[in-house]
Amino acid sequence: MQTGTKKILEAVRNGSMSVEDALLALKTAPFADVGFAKIDLHREIRRGYPEVIYGQGKTTPQIAAILEATVRNGGGNILITRLSGEAAAEISKTFPIDYHPLSKTAFLGEIPAPDGIGTVLVACAGTSDLPVAEEAARTAEVFGNKVERLYDVGVAGLHRLLSAKEKIMTSSVIVAAAGMEGALPSVIAGLADCPVIALPTSVGYGASFGGLAALLGMLNSCSGGVCVVNIDNGFGAGFLAGMINHMGPRA
Amino acid sequence: MQTGTKKILEAVRNGSMSVEDALLALKTAPFADVGFAKIDLHREIRRGYPEVIYGQGKTTPQIAAILEATVRNGGGNILITRLSGEAAAEISKTFPIDYHPLSKTAFLGEIPAPDGIGTVLVACAGTSDLPVAEEAARTAEVFGNKVERLYDVGVAGLHRLLSAKEKIMTSSVIVAAAGMEGALPSVIAGLADCPVIALPTSVGYGASFGGLAALLGMLNSCSGGVCVVNIDNGFGAGFLAGMINHMGPRA
Amino acid sequence: MQTGTKKILEAVRNGSMSVEDALLALKTAPFADVGFAKIDLHREIRRGYPEVIYGQGKTTPQIAAILEATVRNGGGNILITRLSGEAAAEISKTFPIDYHPLSKTAFLGEIPAPDGIGTVLVACAGTSDLPVAEEAARTAEVFGNKVERLYDVGVAGLHRLLSAKEKIMTSSVIVAAAGMEGALPSVIAGLADCPVIALPTSVGYGASFGGLAALLGMLNSCSGGVCVVNIDNGFGAGFLAGMINHMGPRA
Amino acid sequence: MQTGTKKILEAVRNGSMSVEDALLALKTAPFADVGFAKIDLHREIRRGYPEVIYGQGKTTPQIAAILEATVRNGGGNILITRLSGEAAAEISKTFPIDYHPLSKTAFLGEIPAPDGIGTVLVACAGTSDLPVAEEAARTAEVFGNKVERLYDVGVAGLHRLLSAKEKIMTSSVIVAAAGMEGALPSVIAGLADCPVIALPTSVGYGASFGGLAALLGMLNSCSGGVCVVNIDNGFGAGFLAGMINHMGPRA
Amino acid sequence: MQTGTKKILEAVRNGSMSVEDALLALKTAPFADVGFAKIDLHREIRRGYPEVIYGQGKTTPQIAAILEATVRNGGGNILITRLSGEAAAEISKTFPIDYHPLSKTAFLGEIPAPDGIGTVLVACAGTSDLPVAEEAARTAEVFGNKVERLYDVGVAGLHRLLSAKEKIMTSSVIVAAAGMEGALPSVIAGLADCPVIALPTSVGYGASFGGLAALLGMLNSCSGGVCVVNIDNGFGAGFLAGMINHMGPRA
Amino acid sequence: MQTGTKKILEAVRNGSMSVEDALLALKTAPFADVGFAKIDLHREIRRGYPEVIYGQGKTTPQIAAILEATVRNGGGNILITRLSGEAAAEISKTFPIDYHPLSKTAFLGEIPAPDGIGTVLVACAGTSDLPVAEEAARTAEVFGNKVERLYDVGVAGLHRLLSAKEKIMTSSVIVAAAGMEGALPSVIAGLADCPVIALPTSVGYGASFGGLAALLGMLNSCSGGVCVVNIDNGFGAGFLAGMINHMGPRA
Amino acid sequence: MQTGTKKILEAVRNGSMSVEDALLALKTAPFADVGFAKIDLHREIRRGYPEVIYGQGKTTPQIAAILEATVRNGGGNILITRLSGEAAAEISKTFPIDYHPLSKTAFLGEIPAPDGIGTVLVACAGTSDLPVAEEAARTAEVFGNKVERLYDVGVAGLHRLLSAKEKIMTSSVIVAAAGMEGALPSVIAGLADCPVIALPTSVGYGASFGGLAALLGMLNSCSGGVCVVNIDNGFGAGFLAGMINHMGPRA
Amino acid sequence: MQTGTKKILEAVRNGSMSVEDALLALKTAPFADVGFAKIDLHREIRRGYPEVIYGQGKTTPQIAAILEATVRNGGGNILITRLSGEAAAEISKTFPIDYHPLSKTAFLGEIPAPDGIGTVLVACAGTSDLPVAEEAARTAEVFGNKVERLYDVGVAGLHRLLSAKEKIMTSSVIVAAAGMEGALPSVIAGLADCPVIALPTSVGYGASFGGLAALLGMLNSCSGGVCVVNIDNGFGAGFLAGMINHMGPRA
Repeated sequence: MQTGTKKILEAVRNGSMSVEDALLALKTAPFADVGFAKIDLHREIRRGYPEVIYGQGKTTPQIAAILEATVRNGGGNILITRLSGEAAAEISKTFPIDYHPLSKTAFLGEIPAPDGIGTVLVACAGTSDLPVAEEAARTAEVFGNKVERLYDVGVAGLHRLLSAKEKIMTSSVIVAAAGMEGALPSVIAGLADCPVIALPTSVGYGASFGGLAALLGMLNSCSGGVCVVNIDNGFGAGFLAGMINHMGPRA
Repeated sequence: MQTGTKKILEAVRNGSMSVEDALLALKTAPFADVGFAKIDLHREIRRGYPEVIYGQGKTTPQIAAILEATVRNGGGNILITRLSGEAAAEISKTFPIDYHPLSKTAFLGEIPAPDGIGTVLVACAGTSDLPVAEEAARTAEVFGNKVERLYDVGVAGLHRLLSAKEKIMTSSVIVAAAGMEGALPSVIAGLADCPVIALPTSVGYGASFGGLAALLGMLNSCSGGVCVVNIDNGFGAGFLAGMINHMGPRA
Repeated sequence: MQTGTKKILEAVRNGSMSVEDALLALKTAPFADVGFAKIDLHREIRRGYPEVIYGQGKTTPQIAAILEATVRNGGGNILITRLSGEAAAEISKTFPIDYHPLSKTAFLGEIPAPDGIGTVLVACAGTSDLPVAEEAARTAEVFGNKVERLYDVGVAGLHRLLSAKEKIMTSSVIVAAAGMEGALPSVIAGLADCPVIALPTSVGYGASFGGLAALLGMLNSCSGGVCVVNIDNGFGAGFLAGMINHMGPRA
Repeated sequence: MQTGTKKILEAVRNGSMSVEDALLALKTAPFADVGFAKIDLHREIRRGYPEVIYGQGKTTPQIAAILEATVRNGGGNILITRLSGEAAAEISKTFPIDYHPLSKTAFLGEIPAPDGIGTVLVACAGTSDLPVAEEAARTAEVFGNKVERLYDVGVAGLHRLLSAKEKIMTSSVIVAAAGMEGALPSVIAGLADCPVIALPTSVGYGASFGGLAALLGMLNSCSGGVCVVNIDNGFGAGFLAGMINHMGPRA
Repeated sequence: MQTGTKKILEAVRNGSMSVEDALLALKTAPFADVGFAKIDLHREIRRGYPEVIYGQGKTTPQIAAILEATVRNGGGNILITRLSGEAAAEISKTFPIDYHPLSKTAFLGEIPAPDGIGTVLVACAGTSDLPVAEEAARTAEVFGNKVERLYDVGVAGLHRLLSAKEKIMTSSVIVAAAGMEGALPSVIAGLADCPVIALPTSVGYGASFGGLAALLGMLNSCSGGVCVVNIDNGFGAGFLAGMINHMGPRA
Repeated sequence: MQTGTKKILEAVRNGSMSVEDALLALKTAPFADVGFAKIDLHREIRRGYPEVIYGQGKTTPQIAAILEATVRNGGGNILITRLSGEAAAEISKTFPIDYHPLSKTAFLGEIPAPDGIGTVLVACAGTSDLPVAEEAARTAEVFGNKVERLYDVGVAGLHRLLSAKEKIMTSSVIVAAAGMEGALPSVIAGLADCPVIALPTSVGYGASFGGLAALLGMLNSCSGGVCVVNIDNGFGAGFLAGMINHMGPRA
Repeated sequence: MQTGTKKILEAVRNGSMSVEDALLALKTAPFADVGFAKIDLHREIRRGYPEVIYGQGKTTPQIAAILEATVRNGGGNILITRLSGEAAAEISKTFPIDYHPLSKTAFLGEIPAPDGIGTVLVACAGTSDLPVAEEAARTAEVFGNKVERLYDVGVAGLHRLLSAKEKIMTSSVIVAAAGMEGALPSVIAGLADCPVIALPTSVGYGASFGGLAALLGMLNSCSGGVCVVNIDNGFGAGFLAGMINHMGPRA
Repeated sequence: MQTGTKKILEAVRNGSMSVEDALLALKTAPFADVGFAKIDLHREIRRGYPEVIYGQGKTTPQIAAILEATVRNGGGNILITRLSGEAAAEISKTFPIDYHPLSKTAFLGEIPAPDGIGTVLVACAGTSDLPVAEEAARTAEVFGNKVERLYDVGVAGLHRLLSAKEKIMTSSVIVAAAGMEGALPSVIAGLADCPVIALPTSVGYGASFGGLAALLGMLNSCSGGVCVVNIDNGFGAGFLAGMINHMGPRA
């Protein structure tokens, strides 16, 4: 199965295939079918990025099987998200994963050296937002970004946020995580000149309705340059931040 | 009908009735029944406050009839809210009301001199929030408060808000009106040391859902000293602000 | 870090700094950064009020660390809310906290003598609303207010509420907690002449939707002088009640 | 078509058919099919009640056609609800209907003398609730009930409601209409000993969400003996009130 | 405390007080205050009905204390709803309650002989609706009604429902419980000539949203004579059914 | 552009291309690009079905342009849905469309003779549901189905529905349209042995929330063989009904 | 009880009863009443289909009792859905059921040989959707359909879906299960020429709101030939797919 | 007022101020206060970008006044969004704006030559989405981006989308607008390697709930690199797309 991918790459090397044709070909390349899942095998090759396994809703044997198939097919760097401590303990018996309990992410392989445009800043409003913020931060890191953290800077204590004004104004792209009223991204975007990815969290109670209040607040942000991802979607925010931080001329 | 109220007041004056007993008696005093409405007639007497007629959902003849009955029973100062321009034009043929089209409020009588603890600050996030903010401001004014306005200070341009920091920190009570993401009250409350009445407006589109996003954001505010009124309820915010601004020892 | 605050206060004492300038300076004063949290350290100094630690969503070690840092920096009175019995047991090994299981609040230090304008009345509709009502009551107490309780006075048995009419009419500010249909604040506000803070609780089942019915009912109250806080936000209601009960001329 | 119904009734008269068998037969009796509608023709015969035409969503010609077919088949008393003034004007050219603009109901025939157990009390919270309350009141009247009205008795002015305590305690069944927070039925049911039909109205703005707040409040009523009908469903409330007011031993 | 009630009743007996005056007096009679609850003590005396303790959200000691206070003050028949098996086991050590695990109701005392107008029919759509339907049925029974049950007659198998047509047409009042799409009350009301109390249950999954679908369906019923209570509110439905089944001329 | 389609069909005719290959080829055939729209041109050829233009949200010139392009490219039969009377009048100046005001559908060409398995039954609950039901019925007709209509058979008058039992039991596929509580499809499916397409309509008021109640009810149907389409989506229901009515062995 | 059914069938065999009359008679045939449930006993006889027991919300003894009554009355093939592993273990002590833990379905009897028009394709978007997809697949199988599975073909990796284009285009009817954004059915329907049953799953987090996002997306599908069932309703989708796959001329 | 900005720029030019210090200074620069609005005056100077006036909710005189003040203070390029045709006609009497009725945007000044990384692709699902898509496209253009349009490529006709595969794969950043089920961004992101800004539109009916279905679908996208803006927020999508397309090393 991997053969097709190698042939494409060799064709690119010897000049018989253009880079763009190769990209198109790889997009439609086959995948490994393990019955309950169809595994893409070439993402890393294409962009130097890790493969990603979304752990939630999968049994530990399923995760292990996907991991095994990916490694067998040549996948080097692999990020597993939403991995419970129990599943991580089980999987680490077979694979030397590096597991972070706070963000519930595991990584297999070697984190690439950061090489993006600048710094990805991950900010969060309160201590309870840390797990989601850390999922975003670690995702950005394993995708080759320099990451800075700015935690517990909710808008109720504006001076804490303002004291980090320089950091905010010099970042390349910002992930702003908040639950409750979710006002942080708006305020940060009013200070920054770069894209701000608003990351609502399910932190809160009562009329937060599991993150709905924060989500709606962020979608209604009056500040320019703000976009929103799903509630608690730290991976999505971190991945997009890394993608934006690697923007540049296309071959 | 008014007779009962007068007797109570005379009893208080000549010392045969305590102030508290009089308050209790007035609370349960009768009212003028005009068929479709039962009109309280003693609010002004009790507190020097105007009577209030809520105009929405009432026909112009109904409003006129209530106004007429109130005046006939001795009501001096009367505030009419949610009054359309057409209704105001019609009513002003009979009563010398002072109508403000922006806030859709009319006032009959003489605005009392401000006598509260300090200043009621009415802030709003954007130009579109002005009608609601003005309803709050005018309500506070006719209830005897000194009012300052601070408009178009949305959190997307934080420097505009921060440039009014002193005003915010020295007010007695603050009404903060905002639509869209409704972050303004949280940020203001983080700067202020006084009660902040969050006033969500229906300004916005899409996922603002008619002010729901602002309302939820304000209810989830992490800042201390914030409370919330109904969407677009400028009267309620202004009335409560005036009540708080008149706090003081009870007889 | 505390040094800055002391210098400011000394400058006020020796007259080289005005009170207002000091307030502004303190607002923007630094904070203690313990990594996962940034701790404000001067609230008590400013207003004689306790520091507050919101316990929900924080691990016991995180709470302990914030507590330790606050005490180390000179914080005397500290209120911890939403603290589970297990966490309280753990923390009380190190700190002599006074823990109330019903309201899930702990207090470290000495409760100040009540000194507000009058009495804060905390009313609730049913027995199941007690935990939230008690969070409000205790918060008001530790912030220096005289508190009276009026429990199980739901509107279904109006005579129970009416039998406390005098208490309602002579309070300085009222917190009215209710779940289910949440009608209590409206009825109380119709009897009272002071601000009423409506506190919806998540008590109920079926179409109460976790407190949404009570919340909406309270937001739509036709009574003047009513404002609303988040569902189950006993702390917010008690804190605001205390703030209003301490209204007075500004220096 | 009517023949079948007559035969059944004659059989009852001459004793060859029991009343209960006749009721069953009438339930499954045929109907007049006018293409776009199938018209029941025997309701009046069964219970002395009027036929009912629900006018909303029907064109004036459709309403006229149903009216014509009903009259042609022997229907004597006919109530039309949700009838616009324009449609009423058009229809009254052909049929001598008695139209009430406030309740948007028309009646053709003779209102039966009231003969139920007692009085149906129709109460409403505010002036804007009148159209819905009147739809309920008139429906109950044309179905043979004595109706009393108690309007503008919202819970914000409790003394207005309490001054009607005797009326509330001696009614046979009560319809309580309210928009906004919808607390009226709960308070009334706490005073009454009879069934209370809660009738939410769409009166309000902002977080009333078209009557949703009132509806939820009423569904969550803690008072015993309360049930709820659809928002603005004055007909349903009045019809059920009349049905309950006519309870009695079955033949 | 009970003294007042006795005096009132003696006054009625010796003719010095009218029945209506007595009813009014009893309504405003005092109550037993056990701190966390205020217990009404005269409901049974007034109507021969049991006192009711709503068990949900109360601790076992709280329930026991209310039970004890009620008995001590002369309450004979007591219904406890929403009582867990554990709490029932604990309480039955002290009080000889009769506990039904399916409906989670306990009864202390003697069920009165049924004496209403006719039969209360309790119907439910599926096996999973039984607990709620039984709460309604048992409530109606302890309040002196003859109750018939008609279970598992959902509209998907219409012949099961139609085979009970006679039972439906001859009942005095009907409680129709259903989850999922909640169509049962509409279909039953189309067959019956008596009031139908629609009782939505939280039975279902997915887009039933905890009973919301059934609730909305029932509120929108096109059948006359239908009213609705809260989701899973078996007590409310059974209590109202009993009240309607006891309608009759007032003294 | 049409050339490719013709070539494919000729290849099928002369046997050089299998039917299945031809189907695949036609699926990926080109389309006519008129700037603001990309028009599929081969649907009729593939299945003998008309092209469809969804009129809502399109300006009359846009509709006319799409119509013109379709005709120019050989499209014979064309159905236009959601076409206002004004737009129809304008378009009929150029194209001989047959317009039905009730269903707001226009048809250009010749309706094919019905040739499906059996009869498509279109039932609706009330007169107000007719426009949506007719959109479904006419769509099914122009797609080559025999259609029977069964209108005003809401579940509140079950005998009207039961009198059509034979029709229901012998249909090939049924579209059941209803607003309000939307119980019709469940009851019909309990009587039928064929697929039932539930079609919620926005008919109703109050808690129907624009068809949401009917939609939820239908999704929660306990009857087997029921599926649901969008609110007011008469076209979708009629199209699917026709597709099911044409099921048969594949070449 | 079974006797009636046999007599009907014998009458059909000897020609004294038409098939259609027999179908009508069977529809209204009696059922077995086991107290808490009324069991239909003739479905298998009518269509060769299994009886179905919906396990959710029923206790293990209830399921066992229904199973026992069905078998005793001659039911041969029985499908139990939503059966927990514990209940399955208990029941398998008495009945030789074949239990699949993934789909939580049990089958008693012999799966009939597939005999429909063609193949039912069950597709799902991700690994987490498997339990729901398998419930659909197994239901279709036990109802006599050839089933093909196409798993983990979410639209984020379109090449995986496109690589199964032939399978999609040659199926008889398709069940497309997806959680999260639920786009799979739309994309599949754009490729297929057969009915597509959209099956939303509760897979997801945050703004998926328990499957609501997928449900709404599917209801709004722009593709023709799509209909929707309840969230996680694998049985309903599989049953309807089988019904459509068995469409054919009626006797 | 402008003076401060000029001084800052001169300081940068002569090297006495670093670029970063200048950026910080400009962020906190003053604004023009026209009473009802506070106008930022330096955005263009900072980034070469136009000033933006959000027209919705503002009166024509308000828009004109803001425009006038901006021009007077040296603003060269100005974009006005959500401008009605009437307001545009009025304003164009004084200012030579270039107005596009479809996107309801007006531009004053000269559109800068495109200079970003690559091409911004604006795709939309249907013809009705054009106004929103065009708002995005024109916003991106006036902010200096090369824009390509790809319209009417909804997922129901996948071949139309796939025929633009190269365009999708070679864009720098993509805006994907869709109403109804909103599946377009997911499918596009599965084909692209660049950030995709999902732009939900309010196009649709029934269960689209004003764009909510599309919004939820997009938030739940399983594809990497997707973020979401508010419903119908074409400006926000276009502005962010331009910002990302101008990513690059920071001075």
